[in-house]
Amino acid sequence: MAQAYAYTIYRGTFVHTPRLPDSTPRLKTELVRNRGALWVASADGRIKGFDWQARDDASFKELMTRNGWVDVDAPQTYGYDGNEVKVKIVLASEERNEFFFPGFIDTHIHAPQFPNVGLFGSSTLLDWLETYTFPVESGFGAQADQPGGTDKLPNDAPLSALRIYDQVVARTLSHGTTCASYFATVHVPATNALAALCHSRGQRAFIGRVCMDNPDFCPPYYKDLSADDSVSATRSTIEYIRGLDPKGTLVNPIITPRFAPTCTRPALEGLGKLAAEFSPPLHIQTHISENTNECALVKELFPESESYADVYDRYNLLTKRTILAHAVHLTPDERNLIRQRDAKISHCPASNSALGSGIAPVRTLLDEGITVGLGTDVSGGYSPSILEAARQACLVSRLLGHTTSFCQKGDKHVHENGHADKPIIGREKLSVEESLYLATRGGAAVVDMADDLGGFDEGMIWDAQLIELGSVQELSEKPLDMRTDGAPSLVKAGPVGNVDLFGAETWEEKIHKWVWSGDDRNVKAVWVAGRLVHSKS
Amino acid sequence: MAQAYAYTIYRGTFVHTPRLPDSTPRLKTELVRNRGALWVASADGRIKGFDWQARDDASFKELMTRNGWVDVDAPQTYGYDGNEVKVKIVLASEERNEFFFPGFIDTHIHAPQFPNVGLFGSSTLLDWLETYTFPVESGFGAQADQPGGTDKLPNDAPLSALRIYDQVVARTLSHGTTCASYFATVHVPATNALAALCHSRGQRAFIGRVCMDNPDFCPPYYKDLSADDSVSATRSTIEYIRGLDPKGTLVNPIITPRFAPTCTRPALEGLGKLAAEFSPPLHIQTHISENTNECALVKELFPESESYADVYDRYNLLTKRTILAHAVHLTPDERNLIRQRDAKISHCPASNSALGSGIAPVRTLLDEGITVGLGTDVSGGYSPSILEAARQACLVSRLLGHTTSFCQKGDKHVHENGHADKPIIGREKLSVEESLYLATRGGAAVVDMADDLGGFDEGMIWDAQLIELGSVQELSEKPLDMRTDGAPSLVKAGPVGNVDLFGAETWEEKIHKWVWSGDDRNVKAVWVAGRLVHSKS
Repeated sequence: MAQAYAYTIYRGTFVHTPRLPDSTPRLKTELVRNRGALWVASADGRIKGFDWQARDDASFKELMTRNGWVDVDAPQTYGYDGNEVKVKIVLASEERNEFFFPGFIDTHIHAPQFPNVGLFGSSTLLDWLETYTFPVESGFGAQADQPGGTDKLPNDAPLSALRIYDQVVARTLSHGTTCASYFATVHVPATNALAALCHSRGQRAFIGRVCMDNPDFCPPYYKDLSADDSVSATRSTIEYIRGLDPKGTLVNPIITPRFAPTCTRPALEGLGKLAAEFSPPLHIQTHISENTNECALVKELFPESESYADVYDRYNLLTKRTILAHAVHLTPDERNLIRQRDAKISHCPASNSALGSGIAPVRTLLDEGITVGLGTDVSGGYSPSILEAARQACLVSRLLGHTTSFCQKGDKHVHENGHADKPIIGREKLSVEESLYLATRGGAAVVDMADDLGGFDEGMIWDAQLIELGSVQELSEKPLDMRTDGAPSLVKAGPVGNVDLFGAETWEEKIHKWVWSGDDRNVKAVWVAGRLVHSKS
Repeated sequence: MAQAYAYTIYRGTFVHTPRLPDSTPRLKTELVRNRGALWVASADGRIKGFDWQARDDASFKELMTRNGWVDVDAPQTYGYDGNEVKVKIVLASEERNEFFFPGFIDTHIHAPQFPNVGLFGSSTLLDWLETYTFPVESGFGAQADQPGGTDKLPNDAPLSALRIYDQVVARTLSHGTTCASYFATVHVPATNALAALCHSRGQRAFIGRVCMDNPDFCPPYYKDLSADDSVSATRSTIEYIRGLDPKGTLVNPIITPRFAPTCTRPALEGLGKLAAEFSPPLHIQTHISENTNECALVKELFPESESYADVYDRYNLLTKRTILAHAVHLTPDERNLIRQRDAKISHCPASNSALGSGIAPVRTLLDEGITVGLGTDVSGGYSPSILEAARQACLVSRLLGHTTSFCQKGDKHVHENGHADKPIIGREKLSVEESLYLATRGGAAVVDMADDLGGFDEGMIWDAQLIELGSVQELSEKPLDMRTDGAPSLVKAGPVGNVDLFGAETWEEKIHKWVWSGDDRNVKAVWVAGRLVHSKS
């Protein structure tokens, strides 16, 4: 469909993290704020330029005139003789403390587990899979319970699955997630439906049909029939997704062996080959070293492998387009192998705390040159929000120094001072700025799109969110007992959600307040590739 | 003011935790759900009875008739001849998954630090105090910057302080906190204003003027002039608060030595004596053993004391009405002393993670018979929500088994099996039910009101919140692409906030979903002593 305007001009405040050269210590990550105008082409959804001088109305008008732009919503404002280039203007209000921020990237989320959000009791990984996860996922293969399907949706997926997946995509968009790497289930129709829903709602997504064929681990009611079935069913979803989005502009397939214990060697081998058939090779996602019992199980199941990471490496599943979720208990040798293969890691702190898995040593991973992003890991993680994941990444990094693995197990740092035998106390902590880096630039690198996503550099795709913190309370707003109207303060003060601003905050502090107190109420609008995909009702 | 009705009848679903005998292992805490009607007297705000048979309209009408009750809002419904007892009816909707729950008790919160919520960087306790806390608190002593005060508010407190305190009370009420134990600042007028605001808005509160007179630790710009000043200024706020609420029905003073390092021995001694002057003795609150550097400092400052806990004990500050915040690094001897004195502990998990203090071994404390409640510790804690504190209590208990202190430092458990030398793996975890117990019954015991607050037992005070989870999505609600109206699913589905119900949840699972996904949007109304003090706009 031809757009009614050539560009969208975003006006106001823009905050992002700068792209880091690989050699830069991540500890020095900072936020960058720019004010002015930035424009995105309707044709390809990419950032074509910006002007950080065009802050006030006069200089903005000058920018419009210089470019021959006319506002489609108010053509008279800037004059109009029919020869101008039509543009749409989107304004972030300074008074309401609004700013544009890159969309969040969720590098690890299980869409079918969404109905289980908040339900995990006191379980740990292996019993959690059996008690909570396999039962809910198996339901996605039920016979289509109502005549479903449209021209856009596969008609052989159960309506209950469509409903849940639709809600997952709506919810994650409402939290500012513009790109997600999804695990679906073993079922081809429901997996295809997830792809179709992402495509239709406009969320950038990697869609993985889950492969699990090992009868010694998987329950009889929920597994692939064979290794061949794992591969051929996966191929079928790849074909569907390629049909939906031939160039993979928005939605792409991702090869998804659930994790080593669920897969036979022939399945792992077949999936490694399948990924390599394509050019460029397909993305791959799986789990690694989440829980100590799981690590022991992998050692028992794959005695010929040198390590958990080596299991994947043997079957060509450890590539630069591989996302490894968790990585809590990796050995130094495994980290070295992962770095050599340039495989990526999805850090899922909310899940790792909820299931008692432990704390991933993110600083160690970063220091060693491994790429890390954030994942919600719904429903091991209890929240579909990457902002919550960023908070939890900060929090658990502050507890890391109290753990036995940090103090004993060889998570030694490569330090700026050259010493590698003793961690610098406090260096393991992630700052708010670093967590936001992981949530955006880090995630972009994890899905191998570091040149396209995660920031507001010229040429990047406009996957972004408009954050609204609300107004600062005025000193003239008196407490309840000093006013005559009896209205509660919260109504008059104008904060959005739980972010309370008192007026003395620096702009960096406002960002900190957003991270620690914000939620989906502060996400006013979300765009993917320049398309508005969510706005707060 | 005389009430227009004698009772309020609450109808619908009631959830609370049962009161536990001291000998019951806390691991077995369960939630209890009752459905029917419960009535609260307007005269004293206490629960006078309930009828769990009166679930349907017919049996409810029978209950009304039997008691000669008439609904003031709809007298004709049940007949009205002028001789009936007038009652007001408040209904929790079953279809909207509403239920009554005891109000939350925040056993540790610093009201003046509220503007700093979310601002702590990567600091730890001692540098955090210097960088963030003392500067913001010192502002509460500024000259009254506008003519403030009313008949209800002291006119010598700065308007800026009134505004912040007003917002704190409004915010905590909106999160369902019906009772809070507040640290204020050293300033008498602002401390008195906090008491007046709580009293006026109807929040149950303990108000502590902070004592800090040690010139070697406190900054020159923010300290008491002397030990005598600590005591006499505290006495002055006690008198103000007693004048405001002579029987202490709602608002009470609490003796508040900030923590050992900020106080000289004469101040500690004077404050212990001041508390004991009253009958019953006044409540006391302070901090203990939050951070290892703090523990080392106390050892250095008080070489004559056997332990940190012993410092307080020497000055009669360790009583059954003492609230000790944090208790992360207590020794077994200190725990024993605290148990002997029956002093109480406020567990502040969000703060302990945020400042990297460590993880308090709550199970050990409970097993040893120590009373524990939850605290937000704003702004060491980044959230004024006790629901968030309950979540964090669950999460950090799942990480506790990974910490060195748990594995090495003598946090040995008294086990059901009699072994005391090796922790049972997993037993340290707190369940959702236990966290909710700590947030309500536990908090009530911490403020020495276990007979009055924290549950829905007959005779208890109606400090309660009405929680609304929202409707279950109907299967007939089709995904976006199967509907013709184009409206996003979230609008039609009727969830409140982030709690998504799909219809298969048990009632216990709905509570889990509330705890893990809920926020202030789910708090529809809040009552203290039967008075409606907050309702969602």
